[in-house]
Amino acid sequence: MKQNMIVGQSGGPTAAINASLAGVIRQAMRSKEIGEVYGALNGIEGLLDRHIIDLRKSIKDTEDYSRLMATPTMALGSCRYKLPQAPHDDYEKILKIFKDYGIGYFFYIGRNDSMDTVKQLSAYFKMKGENILCVGVPKTIDNDLPKTDHTPGFGSAAKYIAGSIAELALDSSVYDMFNVVIVEIMGRNAGWLTASAALARESGCAAPQLIYLPETPFDPEAFIEKVKSYSNENRPLIIAVSEGIKTKDGEYVSASGAVKDSFGHVMLAGTGNHLKELIKEKIGCKVRSIEFSTLQRTAGHYASATDIEEAAKIGEEAVLAAIRGETGVMMIFERVSDSPYLTRCSTVPIEECANLEKTVPSEWIIDSCDVSEDMMNYLRPLVIGHAKVYEKGGMPSYLSLDKTIAVK
Amino acid sequence: MKQNMIVGQSGGPTAAINASLAGVIRQAMRSKEIGEVYGALNGIEGLLDRHIIDLRKSIKDTEDYSRLMATPTMALGSCRYKLPQAPHDDYEKILKIFKDYGIGYFFYIGRNDSMDTVKQLSAYFKMKGENILCVGVPKTIDNDLPKTDHTPGFGSAAKYIAGSIAELALDSSVYDMFNVVIVEIMGRNAGWLTASAALARESGCAAPQLIYLPETPFDPEAFIEKVKSYSNENRPLIIAVSEGIKTKDGEYVSASGAVKDSFGHVMLAGTGNHLKELIKEKIGCKVRSIEFSTLQRTAGHYASATDIEEAAKIGEEAVLAAIRGETGVMMIFERVSDSPYLTRCSTVPIEECANLEKTVPSEWIIDSCDVSEDMMNYLRPLVIGHAKVYEKGGMPSYLSLDKTIAVK
Repeated sequence: MKQNMIVGQSGGPTAAINASLAGVIRQAMRSKEIGEVYGALNGIEGLLDRHIIDLRKSIKDTEDYSRLMATPTMALGSCRYKLPQAPHDDYEKILKIFKDYGIGYFFYIGRNDSMDTVKQLSAYFKMKGENILCVGVPKTIDNDLPKTDHTPGFGSAAKYIAGSIAELALDSSVYDMFNVVIVEIMGRNAGWLTASAALARESGCAAPQLIYLPETPFDPEAFIEKVKSYSNENRPLIIAVSEGIKTKDGEYVSASGAVKDSFGHVMLAGTGNHLKELIKEKIGCKVRSIEFSTLQRTAGHYASATDIEEAAKIGEEAVLAAIRGETGVMMIFERVSDSPYLTRCSTVPIEECANLEKTVPSEWIIDSCDVSEDMMNYLRPLVIGHAKVYEKGGMPSYLSLDKTIAVK
Repeated sequence: MKQNMIVGQSGGPTAAINASLAGVIRQAMRSKEIGEVYGALNGIEGLLDRHIIDLRKSIKDTEDYSRLMATPTMALGSCRYKLPQAPHDDYEKILKIFKDYGIGYFFYIGRNDSMDTVKQLSAYFKMKGENILCVGVPKTIDNDLPKTDHTPGFGSAAKYIAGSIAELALDSSVYDMFNVVIVEIMGRNAGWLTASAALARESGCAAPQLIYLPETPFDPEAFIEKVKSYSNENRPLIIAVSEGIKTKDGEYVSASGAVKDSFGHVMLAGTGNHLKELIKEKIGCKVRSIEFSTLQRTAGHYASATDIEEAAKIGEEAVLAAIRGETGVMMIFERVSDSPYLTRCSTVPIEECANLEKTVPSEWIIDSCDVSEDMMNYLRPLVIGHAKVYEKGGMPSYLSLDKTIAVK
């Protein structure tokens, strides 16, 4: 008997999360085991409020599908709500909603907090003897989910960061004089995104000459000595620095790191500006600090074709896994080879991913301020290709889903 | 008799200034009146040091030419040196160098300070009875040169700004809650670039809902009231603000506006951050400030095809004007019609442009916080098309000119 399915998105935006949504929707629509194809607006939070839309009505033709793939952030909206630990009313409430809508399949696209939701729900449904299959689809620009070779969304953010740094390096080199540009990159605890800045060198420039990841304690004195060692060159020194670097005492280098979000994560800002002031004081040269801010996660106009294609693929594979009967699993990429670049999709028990973080291995960090050739080999394939950009009147033509609530 | 030519670039980078260089080079190479095709490294400053390269050796094939068009910033390097008022040794020195190299044509691609150099040199050569023809090619993201309909470089910066704002609007809307994003945009005195943010609406979003140009005195109290009026909406409020906005007393809103560059221009930073703090204090909602910084002038990966094509065209036309015998002129675009968009290249006496600024007409500014439909009609054609991007290994593949100094 056909079961209906529902999909939701959660956490922070990426350029590839809608490509995964598109993959889930496409595979669901062509699977004979699946009846209705629903979307939960604003993740588990909207689901609890029955903000459920009929995706068969929202995606009307092949172009809608392709435009959804090319649209950054979350077409279904997001939430930061994390299911409380069971027992809790939420579980009963969700089961009731799923029964009302005839849901047999639940797909949740998100990061480690969202994977916790998949873990809790799948355990609850098993305990209740309900055959509702729950599969997690990873996404995060931070690339910090364990078990998977990399996460959808990371490649596009890496491409934006490294490509923009190659351009900033050109920009700062027009006067043939020494100057410093600090680029502050997202990443609380994991330095993957900051490490990806090294890909700028593939364009033929020397930038970034220095790379500081949060995995290594930051030593301000050694930093100033390093910067000084470049000051006789008649060209810019580009420094890629993670927002989350800490001194050996475990203190954030950023002066203003006191705010916490609803998950208890420390919210950071100002690491680049802090280092800029340090360089001004200790060296006195021309120095600029640039923060990519949310642009690095949302720049659909500069997404990696590899990332977008893989994100759609892993969404399709999630549906196939559920149809095979898998539940309480997260989808992963396994890398078969670097060159030619080949991956396959697989699943792991969600307990091995939820609430866990994968940081950069220490052997891939060189001299506390650079990354190794192994890291480069890992990164290179992920940014290949310029994803298709839809434009109208010279501006991005992104897909906005029809959000009419489905009646049941 | 054939005369040689030399071309230089000056001032701040744009995404289109190398397209103008490519246009000058191509037209020079195919003109029978022109012999050697030289480039001055780092503008007039390098010229004085005889840092002159042979561009016939640097541009080897059609692909080099196309890649030069697609390469942002300045392939010849830049300078901030402005010729002192004559009489001065520099003039005699330049004449000697031009005679040594057999130069009969001088092309200078730059903004109003560079146009002053063209003005001074052409006047000096005329006074000396020397038949050396000097033509200025405009460039600036600020679009503030008089007489020309718009400047090469502006359309690409406008596309980057407006396209990125459309993406930031998507990014900030995923939680369906009110929040404020302030985007700080370059432009000391002229609000053209900030106004171009309005093009984001062409993508179907409401952003930016508020636009503040430096042409209108900024009233902090009215600003806070405006922001409050949006606070009942469950969506982001995106505010585009020029770095150069001033209060009615003529004070920069930015707190830190005390540094001056070598031309005596006040260098600004922090307008967005200042307004962020103001909103936090007076309203207390979630607010983020984003500075596009130098990315807005250097993002070759998101250049306007219209801008790049026009920039090459005006470079070609500059050579044709000089061959016709024109000197002491700046190239301009005249707009024939908005739709279909048609322009033609022409020349104006350089006195009408050098050292002058063109600001946004007051009738194109609505209610001190938006722009008119006439402004939109003016802006729309300038961002049409996505310029060709050359990539290698997923990274930009920009052209670096062979800078071997030419022997004479």
